[in-house]
Amino acid sequence: MIKYPIKKDLKQNTEIKTTANRGMNLESMINRTNEFYLDNDIAVIYKKPIPIQIVSVDYKRRSAARITEAYYKLPSTTDYNGIYKGKYIDFEAKETKSTTSFPLKNIHKHQVTHLRRVKEHGGISFIIVYFSRLEKIFLLDSAYVIKYYSRSKDGRKSISLSEFEKNGYLIKEKYRKPVDYLSVIDKYYL
Amino acid sequence: MIKYPIKKDLKQNTEIKTTANRGMNLESMINRTNEFYLDNDIAVIYKKPIPIQIVSVDYKRRSAARITEAYYKLPSTTDYNGIYKGKYIDFEAKETKSTTSFPLKNIHKHQVTHLRRVKEHGGISFIIVYFSRLEKIFLLDSAYVIKYYSRSKDGRKSISLSEFEKNGYLIKEKYRKPVDYLSVIDKYYL
Repeated sequence: MIKYPIKKDLKQNTEIKTTANRGMNLESMINRTNEFYLDNDIAVIYKKPIPIQIVSVDYKRRSAARITEAYYKLPSTTDYNGIYKGKYIDFEAKETKSTTSFPLKNIHKHQVTHLRRVKEHGGISFIIVYFSRLEKIFLLDSAYVIKYYSRSKDGRKSISLSEFEKNGYLIKEKYRKPVDYLSVIDKYYL
Repeated sequence: MIKYPIKKDLKQNTEIKTTANRGMNLESMINRTNEFYLDNDIAVIYKKPIPIQIVSVDYKRRSAARITEAYYKLPSTTDYNGIYKGKYIDFEAKETKSTTSFPLKNIHKHQVTHLRRVKEHGGISFIIVYFSRLEKIFLLDSAYVIKYYSRSKDGRKSISLSEFEKNGYLIKEKYRKPVDYLSVIDKYYL
């Protein structure tokens, strides 16, 4: 896999230890891919802003209200959604340094509920997981996410790499599309 | 129209004069409607978080990182999107105190572009406008939004009430659904 110029992000990521910044590198790659999709009129898919609880705002300067106290909120939904070929697309993207499995604590319960709802209403929902040390990115359908999440109640709290290899789809990197997940959608969903 | 218990919001709205809070009352009504849709498994439609540019964060307490400096960003897309009967739904909601017209300065150019793109990709896109003093809420298809926005370059910078009456759809209020916009979608779009 080609190294994209995201070293700055990487650096920031090691300095700032917060859930909101986790997955920064994958995020850069997906954003770049979504920009390509948008610029080439292929799809309209965006990352949602990070949900923030604003507590205090300074309105002294009318032109630029300054937020002086705010906190990260737990997201109700997933990070990405949009439209592709008339289909509603919805997914969550996560990165792991593990070389053997993806810990399910990275996905919130209500996000799994959201993915299930989207599927039930006729949308396409999935997760994208980046095993950064292996440089492998998988797309896993929400049906499997639900299955493995449900299993985590009593048993294993992760999805193994071999389960991704068996039930997920490896996302290939293409020229100007670091995470070309729509090629998987084209091949297996449409 | 029944008065919903949103007087607290109204009060806050007059005190805090910022674009981010504009349309607060309509927002409360739409959020309530979307919750009804979600709770009754009718649709999965959410308001996106307000986009914020975070400048400075205090990480002293690990459990609750505190944002100490941030600014409102111009949104790239619209406020609401989601899925209904397999269809991608996307809209912007605005409120006006005017009793004669809706000023187009309330909608950003890139939001109009976004509504057009969604339509071209097979989604359903529109704006919801609340004439608060008339207590009338209209749904106007993005085709008209684009048309009127385009006109504003040389001519009138607003959409008149009579244009809403002629080309838009009046959204009726129903029990537990203050802004039942999906009834319009059912009747005229599906």
